[in-house]
Amino acid sequence: MTTPTSRDLTVTEVRLTPILVADPALLNTQGVHQPYTPRLIVEVVTADGTTGLGETYGDTKYLDLAGPLAERLVGRQAGDLNRLFAEADAVAVDTAQVSGRVDVGGLRGVQTADKLRLSVLSALEVACLDAVGKSLGLPVHALLGGKVRDTVEYSAYLFYKWAGHPEGVPAEKDDWGAAVDPAGVVAQARTFKERYGFTSFKLKGGVFPPDEEIAAVRALAAAFPGHPLRLDPNGAWSVETSLRVAAELGDVLEYLEDPALGTPAMAEVSAGTGVPLATNMCVTTFAEIKEAFARDAVQVVLSDHHYWGGLRNTQQLAAVCRTFGVGVSMHSNTHLGISLAAMTHVAATVPDLHHACDSHYPWQSEDVLTERLTFENGAVRVSDAPGLGVALDRERLAALHRRWLDDDGSLRDRDDAAAMRVADPDWVTPAVPRW
Amino acid sequence: MTTPTSRDLTVTEVRLTPILVADPALLNTQGVHQPYTPRLIVEVVTADGTTGLGETYGDTKYLDLAGPLAERLVGRQAGDLNRLFAEADAVAVDTAQVSGRVDVGGLRGVQTADKLRLSVLSALEVACLDAVGKSLGLPVHALLGGKVRDTVEYSAYLFYKWAGHPEGVPAEKDDWGAAVDPAGVVAQARTFKERYGFTSFKLKGGVFPPDEEIAAVRALAAAFPGHPLRLDPNGAWSVETSLRVAAELGDVLEYLEDPALGTPAMAEVSAGTGVPLATNMCVTTFAEIKEAFARDAVQVVLSDHHYWGGLRNTQQLAAVCRTFGVGVSMHSNTHLGISLAAMTHVAATVPDLHHACDSHYPWQSEDVLTERLTFENGAVRVSDAPGLGVALDRERLAALHRRWLDDDGSLRDRDDAAAMRVADPDWVTPAVPRW
Repeated sequence: MTTPTSRDLTVTEVRLTPILVADPALLNTQGVHQPYTPRLIVEVVTADGTTGLGETYGDTKYLDLAGPLAERLVGRQAGDLNRLFAEADAVAVDTAQVSGRVDVGGLRGVQTADKLRLSVLSALEVACLDAVGKSLGLPVHALLGGKVRDTVEYSAYLFYKWAGHPEGVPAEKDDWGAAVDPAGVVAQARTFKERYGFTSFKLKGGVFPPDEEIAAVRALAAAFPGHPLRLDPNGAWSVETSLRVAAELGDVLEYLEDPALGTPAMAEVSAGTGVPLATNMCVTTFAEIKEAFARDAVQVVLSDHHYWGGLRNTQQLAAVCRTFGVGVSMHSNTHLGISLAAMTHVAATVPDLHHACDSHYPWQSEDVLTERLTFENGAVRVSDAPGLGVALDRERLAALHRRWLDDDGSLRDRDDAAAMRVADPDWVTPAVPRW
Repeated sequence: MTTPTSRDLTVTEVRLTPILVADPALLNTQGVHQPYTPRLIVEVVTADGTTGLGETYGDTKYLDLAGPLAERLVGRQAGDLNRLFAEADAVAVDTAQVSGRVDVGGLRGVQTADKLRLSVLSALEVACLDAVGKSLGLPVHALLGGKVRDTVEYSAYLFYKWAGHPEGVPAEKDDWGAAVDPAGVVAQARTFKERYGFTSFKLKGGVFPPDEEIAAVRALAAAFPGHPLRLDPNGAWSVETSLRVAAELGDVLEYLEDPALGTPAMAEVSAGTGVPLATNMCVTTFAEIKEAFARDAVQVVLSDHHYWGGLRNTQQLAAVCRTFGVGVSMHSNTHLGISLAAMTHVAATVPDLHHACDSHYPWQSEDVLTERLTFENGAVRVSDAPGLGVALDRERLAALHRRWLDDDGSLRDRDDAAAMRVADPDWVTPAVPRW
C-alpha cells in the first residue's frame, strides 16, 4: 500500500540494451534490409521500483549518445522531461555523425546533432512516461491529455521482397514469400488483409523502374477498389518522373510519399499535381517546417516519434501541422512492440489524424514483449492499462542482446546497400534521382 | 490511505461561480475599467473528493457556455481533456456573440465561436489539472512535462489611471494615486519596483495622443535606464503613426505591442521598422497564425491561456512560435490568483520564454484565495505543491459572488466605454485608427 506522496519517481537507473532483431529481405531504393536490424531497448527504473520501457534506433551513433543522456536522467523525477530536453544540448555529438544534409542511405532525412539527440531522448521520454503511468495507475495516453479514439488505424506496409536473404547469410526464415512484381505485391496485400484486416496499403517503391511500380499500384487498385493506396520511393525520382507518376496514379492514390528529395524538388512536384505529397524525409525536424510549409512542399507530415523527440513533441508537431492546414500521420521504420505501443498511445491523442499510420511491426517476427500487440481490422486497440500496457520478456531481450554481442560489428550499423552487396557485389548506393 | 488504483478522478460536479472583483480606474483606448470586473470561478470536484480550481472571463457570453460545457465534463476522467476539447464543437454558441471580426471594445481580438468555447474550456482544463495534480500529489507543471525554471518573471503593467472612479460610483479605494502624465507614470513605475521588484515596464497606451505617450516612455527610459520597456496602444494607431512612434522610441523599446489593428496593418508596420511587434489582438487564435506569420506581421505572440484554450494549448502555441522563429510571452487581462498560478505553471514549462510575462494581478486588491501569490524581484516562484498550489477562500468567493448577484446587470458584461460615459456622457468608442 502506498499513499500518493510516497510514490518516489526519482530515476535511479537507466538500462540500455542494444539488440539485433530479425528483419526479412525487404527491398528499398538503397538496397535490402539486413537480416538483423539494430534497436536500442531502454529501461528507466524509479525509486519506487517501477520500470518503464522505451525503444529507438540502435545504430552506434545512437548508442554513443544514449549513455551520456541516460546519465543526465538519473536523479531526476521521471516526469521532469522538459528540463532534460532543454539541457540535452550540452551533450556533445560526434561531428562525424552529422552532415546537416539528408542522409540518403539512412532514409531518415536530414542528419543534425539535435535530431540525433532527440532520437535518443524519445526513448528516454517514452520509458519515463511508461514508468510514471505505471506508478500512478494511468495509461500513457492519459498522461498526454487522454485518447480521442479507442483504436488506432494502421496501413499495410507492402514491400518488394525476396523470399529470403541471400544463401549462406545467417537469417531467420519468414513465410511471406517473394514479391517482385504486381502479382506478388497483390498477394502480399491479400495476406496482410487476411492476417491483420488492413484496408489501407502502402507500397515501398523506388526499387524498380517507375512503370513497374505504377503497374503494381494499378494492380492493387484493381484488387482492392476504393481502398486508400500510397507509394513511397524514398526520394528516388526526379521532379519530372514524380509528376508523371502522379499523373498516372492520381485517381487511386491517397498520397504520394517523398517522390523526390528535398524541399525545392518536393515543392516543384507539389505545384504540378493535385495528388497530396506526404513526407518523412523532407520534413523530419521542426527546423525544416518553416520553409517546407511556406513553399507548400508537403501536404502530410509523417511523424516518427523517435526522431521528432518523443510523444509530446509528436503532439506539438500535430499542433503545428493543424495550424498550417497540413495533415499528419505516422512514419515507421523497423521497430518492436514497445514503439508500436508508444505510437498507438500518442496517435490516440491527436484529434485530426486522418490517415492510417505506418508500421513495420507485422514484418518483425521477434519482439521483446511477453505478449505481442495485435491488429484487428487493421487497427490496434488503445490500452487503458497503466503505462504503455506492455511487459518486457527478459529472456527474449537477453537472447536478442546476445545476438548483438556476438555480431562482429557488420550489422550494428544498418546499411541496406552493404546488405545488397552480399547478393550483388557490384551494388552501389544509387545516385539520386535514380529515375 | 489510498492505493494508486483507488484514486477515482471521475468528475462528479462542476461548480460555476460568477463574481465581480474590484478594479481600479485604469484607462485604455476604449475608456476606463469598470469599478468591478466579471470573472468566473470554476471548481471541478472528483469522485475521490478532490476539488480543482479554474478561472476565466466572466461576461454573460462566457457564462452561457460554461453550463453546457461543464455538463459535458461531468462523468469523465478529469485528465480526459483531449476528448472534451474535441467534442466541445457540439456545444452551440449564440451567433449574436460572434462576429468573426476583431472585437475592438473587448480588446481581446477576433470573436469566433471556437474562441468563446476555448475561453471557457481553458478554465475547465486548469481546474482538471489542479484536481489531477492534487490527487496524484504532483504540481501542475509536472503534469505539463515539468518546469524548466524555478521562477517566472513578470513585467510591471503601468496604466494611465485616475485616482479613483467617478464620484458617486460604488467602488473600492486604492492607494496608487493618479497617473495621467509622464511624471505620474514614472511614479507608478517606482511604486511597482518598490513593492514587487519588477524590472520590465509595460505602459498601456492609446489613451493620450502619441506624443504624450512617447514622452512617458522617454521618462521611463530616463528613470530606469537599460530596463526593458513596452508600449501597447491596443491598435489605436494608423500605420503611419505606428512607424513614427517606432522610429522615435526604437532605441528604448523591447517591443511595441499592437500599434495598429489587424494583420495587414501590423505587417506594414513590421516591414517599416526594426522594432519587434508583439500582439494579443492580431493573433489570438491558431487560425490567425498562418497568415500573420507568412506576412511577418508579428515577432512576439502574447498568449492568454484563457482564450488560447488552456495550458496545453499554450504549450502548443509556444511550439508553433518556436518552429517559426517567433517569440512568445504572456498577455493578461484583469485576473485573480488562480489564473496567475496557472500562468506561472505553464510559463515555467516553456523553454524559450524570453520576455517577462504581463499580469494585472498587482492591480487586484481582492482575490478568492486564502493566501495571495507574491512577486519577489518581479518574479513568481513556481510552486511544487500538488496542483496549482493555491487554496480557495470560500467566504471571499461568496462575498464576491454576492456582489455579482446584487448587481443590476450593468457590470456583468465588461464595457470600458460605458464606464467612461459615467464621467463623460459624450464618450463614444473611438474609431480606429484613433491617431
